[in-house]
Amino acid sequence: MSHIKRFAVVLAGCGVYDGAEIHEATLTMLAIDKHNAEYQCFAPDVNQAHVINHLNGNEMKETRNVLTESARIARGNIKPLALFNEREFDAIIFPGGFGVAKNLCTFAFDGANCTVNADVEKAIKAMHSAGKPIGALCISPVLITKILGNIKVTIGNDPGTAEEIINMGGQHVSAYHGEVIIDYQRKIFTTPCYMLDASIAQIAEGAENIVKAILKIQ
Amino acid sequence: MSHIKRFAVVLAGCGVYDGAEIHEATLTMLAIDKHNAEYQCFAPDVNQAHVINHLNGNEMKETRNVLTESARIARGNIKPLALFNEREFDAIIFPGGFGVAKNLCTFAFDGANCTVNADVEKAIKAMHSAGKPIGALCISPVLITKILGNIKVTIGNDPGTAEEIINMGGQHVSAYHGEVIIDYQRKIFTTPCYMLDASIAQIAEGAENIVKAILKIQ
Repeated sequence: MSHIKRFAVVLAGCGVYDGAEIHEATLTMLAIDKHNAEYQCFAPDVNQAHVINHLNGNEMKETRNVLTESARIARGNIKPLALFNEREFDAIIFPGGFGVAKNLCTFAFDGANCTVNADVEKAIKAMHSAGKPIGALCISPVLITKILGNIKVTIGNDPGTAEEIINMGGQHVSAYHGEVIIDYQRKIFTTPCYMLDASIAQIAEGAENIVKAILKIQ
Repeated sequence: MSHIKRFAVVLAGCGVYDGAEIHEATLTMLAIDKHNAEYQCFAPDVNQAHVINHLNGNEMKETRNVLTESARIARGNIKPLALFNEREFDAIIFPGGFGVAKNLCTFAFDGANCTVNADVEKAIKAMHSAGKPIGALCISPVLITKILGNIKVTIGNDPGTAEEIINMGGQHVSAYHGEVIIDYQRKIFTTPCYMLDASIAQIAEGAENIVKAILKIQ
């Protein structure tokens, strides 16, 4: 039996282009439940950077809140990230989606010079200081690298993003569908998911593999 | 090998309380992909009945479009249901969520006296006339029953909803997690999903079982 029981799942909105990637978020929650662990969703209570029409990619003249929209994926069972307490969780995991790079930090706009939401930074630093594992799917490794610096991660094989990881002090390892790159010393787990051109079954495989890898760590 | 290759997946927005239930929609797509079939998402190009704040259940003073919001679940790869052509598909399937009973028909407001969106009615009648299978998760069987009348379906075990099924001319069979009720004569497949108090792994099981059952039909 794993000693990892409770995962915090941090969402960044609801929809790949301005929020959390819905398949990655859903399939992370599924993997946790399937392997008899538990999850609690969190999101920062801030406005989205913008709202994108997912039909045509255009910006919409609307304002939406990251916590309120993330609640759609969580079926209402979600807490503001400001209430996160690292003592209540054994692991924290970040599904991907542009929302991670737009709402949780400003990487989509500012690259390696991005700033990070204060609640997100606090949660990641608290888990890391407590020696607890951190998982990141898709583009989320840029967020973890911005905060922790010298960690080994993957964002798949995109050269521009890999270069920004290095610019932020991280090491980048290329990875393919379903592969999990593990920085054992720092307990950082990453997998590319939709950073590669993937089918939804490949996303399920990546989410399951990263959750299983986290559950195995001592 | 199954002769069923192409599924149309009809979405009703994005979020359990005013749109498509996100886990059911995602896990239906996953089940189709896992079993080597293909899917195309559709949604009607109409405004949602309303917008619900999924944090607190309150109505928001916003207008959102069913097709535009459904595109979030489909990662932009979605078509207006008005363009649906039954000759291009082997099966049609409806994930659940209140959006089915609010946006695809008015069951949530009018019960057995509900009206149905014209594109939805046309798609269901066309597939049924062509002798092709129709799948419906969660609350969606009420929509199929309203259109087709005397079919055998399940919505789990909620007595009020089961009674409305009977009021619309259908037969209701109680079902538990993951069970699929099949009306072989009319090729109608239904499973309760979140009409029961379920975990996300139980939703995955229901979605996989209904897709597998449809793939088996001759």
